[in-house]
Amino acid sequence: MERTADALLSALLAGNRRALARVISLVEDDAAEAPALLSALYAHTGRAHVIGITGAPGTGKSTLVNALARAYRAQGHTVGVIAVDPTSPFSGGALLGDRVRMRDLAGDPGIFIRSMATRGSLGGLARATADVISVLDAAGFARILVETVGVGQAEVDIASAAHTTVVVEAPGLGDEVQAIKAGVLEIADIFAVNKADREGADRTVLALQMMQGLAPATTGHHRAAGPPTPHARPQPGPQEDGSWLPPIQKTIALHGDGVDALREWIERHAAYLTATGGWARREATRAAAEIERILRDRLWEALLAGLPADCFAQTVAAVVRRETDPYTAATRLLTYAP
Amino acid sequence: MERTADALLSALLAGNRRALARVISLVEDDAAEAPALLSALYAHTGRAHVIGITGAPGTGKSTLVNALARAYRAQGHTVGVIAVDPTSPFSGGALLGDRVRMRDLAGDPGIFIRSMATRGSLGGLARATADVISVLDAAGFARILVETVGVGQAEVDIASAAHTTVVVEAPGLGDEVQAIKAGVLEIADIFAVNKADREGADRTVLALQMMQGLAPATTGHHRAAGPPTPHARPQPGPQEDGSWLPPIQKTIALHGDGVDALREWIERHAAYLTATGGWARREATRAAAEIERILRDRLWEALLAGLPADCFAQTVAAVVRRETDPYTAATRLLTYAP
Repeated sequence: MERTADALLSALLAGNRRALARVISLVEDDAAEAPALLSALYAHTGRAHVIGITGAPGTGKSTLVNALARAYRAQGHTVGVIAVDPTSPFSGGALLGDRVRMRDLAGDPGIFIRSMATRGSLGGLARATADVISVLDAAGFARILVETVGVGQAEVDIASAAHTTVVVEAPGLGDEVQAIKAGVLEIADIFAVNKADREGADRTVLALQMMQGLAPATTGHHRAAGPPTPHARPQPGPQEDGSWLPPIQKTIALHGDGVDALREWIERHAAYLTATGGWARREATRAAAEIERILRDRLWEALLAGLPADCFAQTVAAVVRRETDPYTAATRLLTYAP
Repeated sequence: MERTADALLSALLAGNRRALARVISLVEDDAAEAPALLSALYAHTGRAHVIGITGAPGTGKSTLVNALARAYRAQGHTVGVIAVDPTSPFSGGALLGDRVRMRDLAGDPGIFIRSMATRGSLGGLARATADVISVLDAAGFARILVETVGVGQAEVDIASAAHTTVVVEAPGLGDEVQAIKAGVLEIADIFAVNKADREGADRTVLALQMMQGLAPATTGHHRAAGPPTPHARPQPGPQEDGSWLPPIQKTIALHGDGVDALREWIERHAAYLTATGGWARREATRAAAEIERILRDRLWEALLAGLPADCFAQTVAAVVRRETDPYTAATRLLTYAP
């Protein structure tokens, strides 16, 4: 590693914010010095609690992330925020409002906020996010909030980078709202039902409970014979068998309602992970996912680098002409000998 | 290829629906005979118009896809529908309603509907979707509608598998609705503003026009001096410079309003692609994406197969203990010599 990179790393570890911003930019830009920097700072990671917060547009999760950051600051914890939420240059009032609210926190050295842009290609985003988490961890931030939008691959990738995943729902998002994705249910450690002052909040909570298999279906024809017994639903959190039942926390992020209770659930989840060995397992999952991402990219780059300049394009053209098919073409490229 | 696979392929090409369902299952399950089947049927592909339809939960895109399928059937086109929308076993009334509506079409041999499940891991979904598109194409379906949910990686992957991408928006999805994702704007060939009878539909149309740079901002303080001139907005569709301006089509999928106009826009887009050479370019993009996905998976599998059984796990453990870092670990695994 060159001396400038060395100096940059020392400044980062000493808490210099400009060094932190510079290292993050190098990592985001996939700069030549990024791998060496990441290698060197990795020994200083492993102390942060990484919290993924995900949900569909309209759930108010940006506001919730801001409120949660403030709740953590009130407890004296340092907070890094990564907003993996690529919005167009033309974004409406809501996001702008969030950014304005964020300014409340801007003068505070105990918090660092970074938006991650995709720049058209989303391919390297999961890797870049994992790398920026490592940078903030090395810089000493105790809690790292990673905000992602949508219900797709990105969420699952982000979940593989988090210790605790909060899935944000909201009432009244339309008639598909009940169709909460199975994949999202599987990654949720905690549910936040935000905008809980809106009509339908209780229905959203009930729908989540039913998904958890903890409430009887009460729709029309199949109504249960009697009312559900209040003892039927176990307390959320750690269970006697060592598992974790995701709590469902109502919040009104805009007014701060329920946010501290949500923060406490996140802390309880970390304690549960530590007590049960789950923390070590999640660390292993995170590391395995990161190594796999690096290896997949390097293998692909090495294969392309070993092919003549137009070999891949010619193969694609042959597939388009149906002279060959993608599977046969892939086999030929794998065994290409000059 | 074995004789049973050969017979299966012949039956598929002859229009046998059970053979079609069987081949799709083999592809989805990543069965041993899947690559040989896909290789063999690929020569019969390249005739279908692949249409991606994507949008956030609550936009009613499942209903729109059903209505569009019916509109195509009314024109005499055969239609394949792939719903890449992994919903939990507990999905509410809306999706159930869709499935019921779908039954209108169930007796029709000119349509084939398939839901793609993720089974926890979303990793191989994009590849499986591309493969199922090839199967339906070889089976002779003229239009293939690929429905995806969310605003993440999945959309971009699906767009790489489609000739025409329709992005569905809807009014009143919450205060983040204006924050339409830049990546989604880039992949949209056509916008559908569904639920157009709801309040705010015109605002959604205007927001999309503003994103396209075609309408002046008229919010509060920055209202333009005069009314916008009606000539300022060019007609959507093919432009004189050879580009394509995505049209914005209002629809009420539930009543069928605007659906045939949307179908006509999709057909016009295909004609535009054919006339400008764009079709061949999209075919090349599709083939390149599919070959890359196959190669990346095979390279990764080959690397793992070449390592001793617990080598990867031990490397992960060393990274978790911070004895090494993911980048150094990746380099070691790449250059592993027994």
